[in-house]
Amino acid sequence: MDNFSFYAPTYFEFGKDAENKAGSLVRRFGGNKVLIHYGGGSVVRSGLLERVKKSLEAEGITYVELGGVMPNPRSGLVYKGIDICRQEGIDFILAVGGGSTIDSSKAIAAGAVYDGDFWDFYEGKSVTKALPVGTVLTIAAAGSEGSPDSVITKEEGMLKRGASGEAYRPKFSILNPELTQTLPPYQTACGITDIICHLYERYLTNTKNVETTDRMIEGLILAMVEEGPKVILNPNDYEARANIMWAGMMAHNNSCGVGRSQDWISHNLEHELSAKYDCAHGAGLAVAMPAVFTYELSHDVNRFAKIAVRVWGCQMDFDNPEVTAKQGIERLKQFLISIGMPKNFAELGAKEEDIELLAYTACYGDGNGSGNVYGFIKLEQKDVEAIYRLML
Amino acid sequence: MDNFSFYAPTYFEFGKDAENKAGSLVRRFGGNKVLIHYGGGSVVRSGLLERVKKSLEAEGITYVELGGVMPNPRSGLVYKGIDICRQEGIDFILAVGGGSTIDSSKAIAAGAVYDGDFWDFYEGKSVTKALPVGTVLTIAAAGSEGSPDSVITKEEGMLKRGASGEAYRPKFSILNPELTQTLPPYQTACGITDIICHLYERYLTNTKNVETTDRMIEGLILAMVEEGPKVILNPNDYEARANIMWAGMMAHNNSCGVGRSQDWISHNLEHELSAKYDCAHGAGLAVAMPAVFTYELSHDVNRFAKIAVRVWGCQMDFDNPEVTAKQGIERLKQFLISIGMPKNFAELGAKEEDIELLAYTACYGDGNGSGNVYGFIKLEQKDVEAIYRLML
Repeated sequence: MDNFSFYAPTYFEFGKDAENKAGSLVRRFGGNKVLIHYGGGSVVRSGLLERVKKSLEAEGITYVELGGVMPNPRSGLVYKGIDICRQEGIDFILAVGGGSTIDSSKAIAAGAVYDGDFWDFYEGKSVTKALPVGTVLTIAAAGSEGSPDSVITKEEGMLKRGASGEAYRPKFSILNPELTQTLPPYQTACGITDIICHLYERYLTNTKNVETTDRMIEGLILAMVEEGPKVILNPNDYEARANIMWAGMMAHNNSCGVGRSQDWISHNLEHELSAKYDCAHGAGLAVAMPAVFTYELSHDVNRFAKIAVRVWGCQMDFDNPEVTAKQGIERLKQFLISIGMPKNFAELGAKEEDIELLAYTACYGDGNGSGNVYGFIKLEQKDVEAIYRLML
Repeated sequence: MDNFSFYAPTYFEFGKDAENKAGSLVRRFGGNKVLIHYGGGSVVRSGLLERVKKSLEAEGITYVELGGVMPNPRSGLVYKGIDICRQEGIDFILAVGGGSTIDSSKAIAAGAVYDGDFWDFYEGKSVTKALPVGTVLTIAAAGSEGSPDSVITKEEGMLKRGASGEAYRPKFSILNPELTQTLPPYQTACGITDIICHLYERYLTNTKNVETTDRMIEGLILAMVEEGPKVILNPNDYEARANIMWAGMMAHNNSCGVGRSQDWISHNLEHELSAKYDCAHGAGLAVAMPAVFTYELSHDVNRFAKIAVRVWGCQMDFDNPEVTAKQGIERLKQFLISIGMPKNFAELGAKEEDIELLAYTACYGDGNGSGNVYGFIKLEQKDVEAIYRLML
C-alpha cells in the first residue's frame, strides 16, 4: 500500500426531509450571505428550491440565486457566478442539484477568491482556497457531494477538464433519497453507471496488496448491481434509492481508493465524448468502460479475473484466467445495457469519423497535453484511437 | 434505511515515517502546549516517543508527558491527566499508543474543560466539548483513532463503561503500519478480533434494506480473514499490517454503520469480563461473540445465514438455513482460535461461579442500569446468564 493522507470533513445529513436543515447547516458552517446555485426547472417545479429558501430565511440568512447550470457545466456560468459573488459579498455557496451544479459551485467558490482566471485550476493549478460550499443533492451519481473534485467544460473549444483540492470538499451535504425519486430511469441509470465507474477506476490499480480497499470496492459494486435494477423497475423504491445514494458518496470520497494508484482512463476518454456530443456523462462511461477494460485486460489479467469472480459471479477458469476476465467485462456491459444504457458510438450519437480528433484532444488537450493518457496503462494517441474503435 | 447524520472530520496521515509529521499536525490543528499521553515502556523502548517529541520540538511546541496507561484504562490516571491539563494550561492532547491510550486521552480532553466529574460522560451525558486530541496509533484494533467513542474503567467497583460524542473524534490520526510490526502475535490477534467484532456489531441490525453497508461490512471482514493470518505468521508483513490498519479505522468510524440499528451486546458482555478479570478486550470478545451470536441466532436466521455464505464461504442450506447460520458462527469461532484467541471461560481466566454477578452488573451497572441489555435482541439478566454459560 502506498503512503497517503485522507481528510474528508464533510458533514452529511441523510434522510427524509433533510433539506429543511439547509439553513441551520449554512449557519453552522459560517454562511451569512449565500449564492444558491442550481440547474433547470426541476428543483423549482418540485418545490425543493422553495423549501431550501424557507430554511435559509428561518435562520435570517440572505441569498442571491443563480440558476441555469447545464449537464457538463460550462465556464460561462462560472464566470457569471464569480462576478455575483464579488459584487454581492457572498460568503457561502449552496448547490441545489446534481454533480453538475455542485461542480459549477465549486468552480465559482474557487474563482471568487482568486485573482486570476478560475480556469487555471482546471489546467493543473491546485485549489487551496475557496468559499465554503454546501450541497443539497438531487441525483446519486458524481459523488461530488463528498469529493474534492470538480469537472467543468470550457465553451471555447469545448474542453472538459477536472480540478481537485481539499478546499473543494463541501462543508456539508444534504442527502435525501426522496429527492432522487422523480428522476427518469435514464438519468438514474446514468448515475448508477457513474458510481460503478468511480469504483472500477479505483479498482484498476498497479499497487499490490490492497485487499481492504479491493473488498470495499467490490462490496459497493455488488450493492449497485443489486439495488440498481430495483430503482429502474420502481423509481419510488426509497430503500434502494437510499442505498445507491450512500454508495455514490462512498464510491468517490476516496476512502476506498486510498494508498493505491488509480486508473481514470474511462473518465478521460468519456470527457471527450460528452464535451463533443453533449451526451450524459454516465451514458458515455457505459460505452467507454467495456472498450477501455478490454484494451487494458492483457496488462493484468488476474485483476480483471478477480472482479469477474467476486463481483460478477463468474466461475474462475484456472487454466485460462483470460476467459474469466473477458467474461467479467461482458457481464458488466450486459448489466449496463439491462438498466438502459447505450452500448456503442451509434447509440451515443458519436461518430466514427471524429475518432482521430477525439483521440488527439484526449492526448494533447488544447496544446498543453503531454501526448499521453496515463492510468492503469500508458496510452499514446494510437492506443486511444484503438479504444474508441472498440466502442463502434 | 434510517435517517442519520455522519461527520468524520479526522485527518489521517498513513504510511511509513508518518509519526514525524506529529509536530506539523499539532500545529495545523491549533495546539501550542501538548500533553503527550502514553502507556508502558514499548513506545519509549522503540524510540517512537523520542521521534514524536523531536517532531513537536521542531515546531516549537512545548509539552508535558503522562505515561502509565494500562489496557482497560483506569479513571485514576484520567483524573491525574485532567489535573495536569488545568495546571499546565494544556490546549492539545497527543495520544501515542493504542485504543486504551486514545480512550484515556479523550476522557482527559473532556474532563479538562468540564466543571463536574468526567465520569458523568461515562454514565450517559453527551460529550459536546473537549480539548482537541491527536493520535499516533500503535495497534490496529479499537478504531478509536477515527471514532467518537471512548471506554474507561472506573476503579471503584471496576465498572467499564463507554462515552460518545462528536467532540471525541480526533483532529488527526497518524497511522504507520510499521509501528504495529513489533506487536506480539497475541495482541495482534486481539486487535483483529476487535475489528471483526466492530463489524459484526454493525452487521447485526433490525433495519431492513441496508445492502450497501452490509456489503461494506462483509468486505471488511473478508479482508481481515485474508490478511489476519498473514501477520500472525509473519509479524513483519508490512502490507498485511497496512490493510488491517486501514480496515480497523473503517470498521469503527461508522461509515459502514450509518442508518441502521446496531448490536453491541458482545461488547457489553465482554466489558464485564475484562473489567473483572483484566483480560485483553479482544480475547474477551473472541469468547463472547460465538456465544452471543448463538443466543441471537433464532431472532434472524437469514441474517446469520447471509454472513455465513458471503463471508465464511458456507454453502446455503436452502431447506434449513439455520444449519448454514450455525456453520457461519462455528467458522468464525474456528478462525479466532486459529489466530490464537481463547475459546472459553477457562482459557480466558473467567470463572463459572461469577456468572450471576457478571450478568447482574451487565444489566444493572452500579445501580443505574435498566435491568436490560439492548442490542440485536433485548436481554434480561437470565438471558445474559445463559449467554455466559454458553462460554463455559
